[in-house]
Amino acid sequence: MTAKNAFYAQSGGVTAVINASACGVIETARKHSDKIANVYAGRNGIIGALTEDLIDTNQESAQDIAELKNTPSGAFGSCRYKLKSLEDNRREYERLIEVFKAHNIGYFFYNGGGDSADTCFKVSQLSEKMGFPVQAIHVPKTVDNDLPITDNCPGFGSVAKYIAVSSLEASYDVRSMAKTSTKVFVIEVMGRHAGWIAAAGGLIEDYGIPVVVLFPEVEFDQQKFLAAVDAKVKEFGYCTVVVSEGCHWPDGKFLAEQGTRDDFGHAQLGGAAPVVANMIKETLGYKFHWAVADYLQRAARHLASRSDVEQAYALGEAAVNLALEDHNSIMPTVVRESSSPYKWSIGMAPLSEVANVEKMMPMDYITEDGFGITDGCKEYLYPLIQGEAYPEYDDNGMPRYVTMKGIAVPRKLADFEV
Amino acid sequence: MTAKNAFYAQSGGVTAVINASACGVIETARKHSDKIANVYAGRNGIIGALTEDLIDTNQESAQDIAELKNTPSGAFGSCRYKLKSLEDNRREYERLIEVFKAHNIGYFFYNGGGDSADTCFKVSQLSEKMGFPVQAIHVPKTVDNDLPITDNCPGFGSVAKYIAVSSLEASYDVRSMAKTSTKVFVIEVMGRHAGWIAAAGGLIEDYGIPVVVLFPEVEFDQQKFLAAVDAKVKEFGYCTVVVSEGCHWPDGKFLAEQGTRDDFGHAQLGGAAPVVANMIKETLGYKFHWAVADYLQRAARHLASRSDVEQAYALGEAAVNLALEDHNSIMPTVVRESSSPYKWSIGMAPLSEVANVEKMMPMDYITEDGFGITDGCKEYLYPLIQGEAYPEYDDNGMPRYVTMKGIAVPRKLADFEV
Repeated sequence: MTAKNAFYAQSGGVTAVINASACGVIETARKHSDKIANVYAGRNGIIGALTEDLIDTNQESAQDIAELKNTPSGAFGSCRYKLKSLEDNRREYERLIEVFKAHNIGYFFYNGGGDSADTCFKVSQLSEKMGFPVQAIHVPKTVDNDLPITDNCPGFGSVAKYIAVSSLEASYDVRSMAKTSTKVFVIEVMGRHAGWIAAAGGLIEDYGIPVVVLFPEVEFDQQKFLAAVDAKVKEFGYCTVVVSEGCHWPDGKFLAEQGTRDDFGHAQLGGAAPVVANMIKETLGYKFHWAVADYLQRAARHLASRSDVEQAYALGEAAVNLALEDHNSIMPTVVRESSSPYKWSIGMAPLSEVANVEKMMPMDYITEDGFGITDGCKEYLYPLIQGEAYPEYDDNGMPRYVTMKGIAVPRKLADFEV
Repeated sequence: MTAKNAFYAQSGGVTAVINASACGVIETARKHSDKIANVYAGRNGIIGALTEDLIDTNQESAQDIAELKNTPSGAFGSCRYKLKSLEDNRREYERLIEVFKAHNIGYFFYNGGGDSADTCFKVSQLSEKMGFPVQAIHVPKTVDNDLPITDNCPGFGSVAKYIAVSSLEASYDVRSMAKTSTKVFVIEVMGRHAGWIAAAGGLIEDYGIPVVVLFPEVEFDQQKFLAAVDAKVKEFGYCTVVVSEGCHWPDGKFLAEQGTRDDFGHAQLGGAAPVVANMIKETLGYKFHWAVADYLQRAARHLASRSDVEQAYALGEAAVNLALEDHNSIMPTVVRESSSPYKWSIGMAPLSEVANVEKMMPMDYITEDGFGITDGCKEYLYPLIQGEAYPEYDDNGMPRYVTMKGIAVPRKLADFEV
């Protein structure tokens, strides 16, 4: 068996630990240089493969690659670019195979969420048909935690830790001030249509904080919500609200699309938090503060979960090892062996069962009133936020995050328009 | 000299390290129990003194007091309650002295910003006149960093570190995605009329990030701002914008003005980020994301600056030692001995020179174009964010923050309406 090259790409929204998976892939490939000569990384994800813009990772030092484990975001660039179906856009899939062929790429490691699992699956099928078989392995990543089969998705644990800790800290702040000032603090969190991240905010209940969680899985009921907040403020003097960006009215309209206007007459775009906060002020009269964590939450490598970093690395490592064991069209998964103490191992799932399947939060993870999380949910969540994994800091007091040299592999093919 | 009691209160917006000052006060007082029998803490700040709602800190364990050093927010409760002038509200000042007299309180440690320095000063003057002299020492605290004489204010360094690190992390995220998705990230920061916190966001320029900072000290010029953002996006592919909540138009109107005011009559700010982001989208067409960190930034004990924690403690400690050396009507200060290496010591300022004086950011800390910080500003800021001082975490993966027992001292006086 002569050595082939591998192609690695980051896909979709990046996370605090996707580079830890990249580190796992590249470090493991380097241990098997007899079989994997080089890992070419797509500059800006799959677009790099289509445009033949490949980064030569052999030109990155061992130390820089090791530091990927502690660096947030996508060090090679990512993209939001979903390949259409094979029928609609065979041209792009064929281009991918051409690029792989031109650069002797026998392994395709695609690091992303549901869409990229689907692309990965198709590449594996088509390369077979086109007579240049490529082993396609999907490395899971998504803060939305919505991939099937795997117990959890790298990226989620760190966001969950960030939201749980930040909500706790801000709640302490409100508790301090509530006598004469702010009584309600609203924090808006990511997660699209899945309430996993919002659920992490619900953990602060265990730390004595009165909290109301608004999940995308539960239709927003304004009266019931305001009554819940009012009851908490009357009992505790204050209340924290965790609202998911995907929270919506019964007609499907997002809370963030309220149609409110600021003092300049501009439509207030985005922001379920200010909508909820103003609703509370207008109806209950409580003084509020609100925060929208946005990218801060998924980039917060400074507060990553150690479980999450370790799993992200292990899944990258496993992807390479599974490829070298001749597996194809699969995704390594996290298998939970036990919650307390937390034990996990690496499993594997066929991409045919992963592609286009969205894992929803079980409804029995949400309390009956729709505003909190159950003990079962807490048992699921805590292991994922366990442990810290701090980056190093420089003498200025800033974290040492690495930037790749990003040297391009010389091109061999004609230009291609995406 | 027979032992007297001390009164300690937290005032105004709380911080990640104000409890470290409380820890410094209480631990130091305990070392001198021959002179300071007990530290009574005002429940919810000065309101606790007015209503005779005093927390008996001798009933808190040594360990709990020690853990204050790692716990954000105001553990005894704070308040936004500014005593009116002596002429307008002599009744409240006299009540304070009455309460102090009833509980044999000879020391008044008031932990806050400019308003509380003023109150502290007045109490010291009035108690003298009323024949029950109380030594009033102000312990500085404010994330706005706007107290005079002291080189910096506890609370600011940790917010600065949080904003610098979070802005860097989110910028890495945008950089990863900019090819096909978000090109401009806007983060809104606190600081009211002072641009110190916004300036901390400007540090990320040293880490290769194209950043535009909007200071409250610089009148907002929409065209110039949009041109600056556009130039960065054209050169780097993306841009980060750090906008201060106090940023305003030439006519003085805040970008964010919501029309509501807090109890001090200050306009309640929040929401400049979406205004700025939408302006960019409408004019330049760039896809954006925005975050409003709000309380998260000042509560983020998980990312406190070690310099800041140490100074907060040292100032609390110094307050007690200075009181025991018979100083009165003063504020311990941070004196910068050198920036590189960073060396500081504790000084002292008379309250007559602190009360009602606001320290503005020097204009030569802002670059000529008005959108960045100078080398002088960086030399000032870096020492303040140096070092980490992590809290401990429990087995769940959550930080160990302490909650006081908060047992009240039995009352001796009639009720008092505030």
